[in-house]
Amino acid sequence: MRGVVMHAPGDVRTEELEMPVILEPTDAIIRVTATCICGSDLWPYRGAEAIRAGGQRMGHEYIGVVESVGGEVARIRPGDHVVGSFVASDNTCEICAAGYQSRCVHQVMMGSVGTQAQYARIPLADGTLVVTPGELPADLIPSLLAASDVLGTGWFAAVAAEAGPGKTVAVVGDGAVGLLGVLAAKQLGAERVIAMSRHADRQALARRFGATDIVTERGEEGAARIKELTGGLGAHSTIEAVGTQESMEQAIRATRAGGHVGFVGVSHDVALDGAEVFFSSVHLHGGPAPVRRFLPELVDLIFQRRIDPGAVFDLTLSIEDAAEGYRAMDERRATKVLLTTD
Amino acid sequence: MRGVVMHAPGDVRTEELEMPVILEPTDAIIRVTATCICGSDLWPYRGAEAIRAGGQRMGHEYIGVVESVGGEVARIRPGDHVVGSFVASDNTCEICAAGYQSRCVHQVMMGSVGTQAQYARIPLADGTLVVTPGELPADLIPSLLAASDVLGTGWFAAVAAEAGPGKTVAVVGDGAVGLLGVLAAKQLGAERVIAMSRHADRQALARRFGATDIVTERGEEGAARIKELTGGLGAHSTIEAVGTQESMEQAIRATRAGGHVGFVGVSHDVALDGAEVFFSSVHLHGGPAPVRRFLPELVDLIFQRRIDPGAVFDLTLSIEDAAEGYRAMDERRATKVLLTTD
Repeated sequence: MRGVVMHAPGDVRTEELEMPVILEPTDAIIRVTATCICGSDLWPYRGAEAIRAGGQRMGHEYIGVVESVGGEVARIRPGDHVVGSFVASDNTCEICAAGYQSRCVHQVMMGSVGTQAQYARIPLADGTLVVTPGELPADLIPSLLAASDVLGTGWFAAVAAEAGPGKTVAVVGDGAVGLLGVLAAKQLGAERVIAMSRHADRQALARRFGATDIVTERGEEGAARIKELTGGLGAHSTIEAVGTQESMEQAIRATRAGGHVGFVGVSHDVALDGAEVFFSSVHLHGGPAPVRRFLPELVDLIFQRRIDPGAVFDLTLSIEDAAEGYRAMDERRATKVLLTTD
Repeated sequence: MRGVVMHAPGDVRTEELEMPVILEPTDAIIRVTATCICGSDLWPYRGAEAIRAGGQRMGHEYIGVVESVGGEVARIRPGDHVVGSFVASDNTCEICAAGYQSRCVHQVMMGSVGTQAQYARIPLADGTLVVTPGELPADLIPSLLAASDVLGTGWFAAVAAEAGPGKTVAVVGDGAVGLLGVLAAKQLGAERVIAMSRHADRQALARRFGATDIVTERGEEGAARIKELTGGLGAHSTIEAVGTQESMEQAIRATRAGGHVGFVGVSHDVALDGAEVFFSSVHLHGGPAPVRRFLPELVDLIFQRRIDPGAVFDLTLSIEDAAEGYRAMDERRATKVLLTTD
């Protein structure tokens, strides 16, 4: 089968790989219908994260059709159309039961498996996969794929930020996750959603997803602008979807005392000043999103065509052209790249 | 009148000071019945915080009797027996209404007023002061005084940590705030309360307040011990009541994914590693406690004699002997010192 391997920063290739096989009786093998490139895949691409020696299989987002299942898989059957989270989880342990499937005691990061490929092994299939109501309509494929990570992550950020009725929500970051944070905040009933973006196309998508205001300032000025828009107090809820020192500070400073910051940008070289966090009086919550918690609801919203998160994909390529997809995202020519596997 | 002034690290004196007067029409003047020395007063005492040039009035905890009120004070009357928070607040602004009176848009830190004195000016008296049901019974004075800060702060930490039924709560710090965090967690219905302490007398008080377990290990070992006691997962809720790098890391590492850390130790030279906070998946909330939010309930619990937070005072001195009180706390001969003003 064909799959994507990163050999060095900037060096991504589509190669012939061995077909995955059932390794554990709780595994399933799926034929990947569609996969995509994540903003977090750019960290190693840009040399900001180590790459496994000998080449690293890439990808952790996926929708597909179940080919085969291990002997202990009870709920998932061959032929099922499925979507799963970027973290495999048993969905039964105490941590999963509390809604933190991304930190399941048996968690397997799908990035270690690699789903930018024609087939993938899904560990803990019963806990990880959500069966869709019937075959995947072609026009819903991007949205269902988005549910696998970026939508689920934006949704978690909005939930962590306690977006809801009567709330003003600020969103730091206009990548796919930030934009879907806008969508989530709107869906959760936020009164006002302020997208922070300097790019006309992303601003337009933010508006389409429900942003009521756009702020182009960043850093200190961005936080000051949010305060200005909120009677000097700051947003009730802020979604942080970047993961840098500046974006975290911007998020904390844009939020009122007693407000909530939901942060889902993977932290890179961030050090939070204890005194600043203390005197900010905000709630901080984030981390790897427990996408599995939200998947059934998200799949439902997508099948009801009440949300259209697939709009974040602005480039679709064959998996054979994955290298161009990475380049396009690295150069910000694309927000999010969908890879077809036919 | 007599009051306490800090002139330099280690140099605390009780001096003759001018009587406070009404400066704003929202002020009240109270005769201080009792005041006390706070763990946070030790930061400048130990040279870890600057001291105002010319001498700094000390103290932010107080109970007393109202002497006079300004022209715009409507709810508080001369003769009222009152307790207030260490932050004066209007209790009507949007931030107060959300329960964050310690960050009121008109907040006045009582430490800038100085309540280790025979009389004190209380700004925003209507919003700040809670009238007790009648005169203060002598035996309840320590408990009511504790409500002014250490009890309210420990209570906020337990609420921020979402202590409650079915929860295991770990408490980092065995000073007055940590011990009252134990009491609060117990009152809020926690199933198990693990106090982290190496001192026999503080362990005994923690037990009296409701601790079910004592852990003597600190730092990495302390966090590991908490995990051991909680099936490898960590506490649901952790109260941090110290404010150092080690104590914050200990608190975060002792908490399970999805759990809550309530931190109220005033951060000094703390830098939180972004990646660690991210991958911990905990909720972080803390800061200056909005004691005013809890005061009516706490006063009620104290008058019903259902809680005895005054037990944290293990030394009572005249305000004339304040210097000895500071020394005793600095040398850990006392947990918390009550100062009488007669």
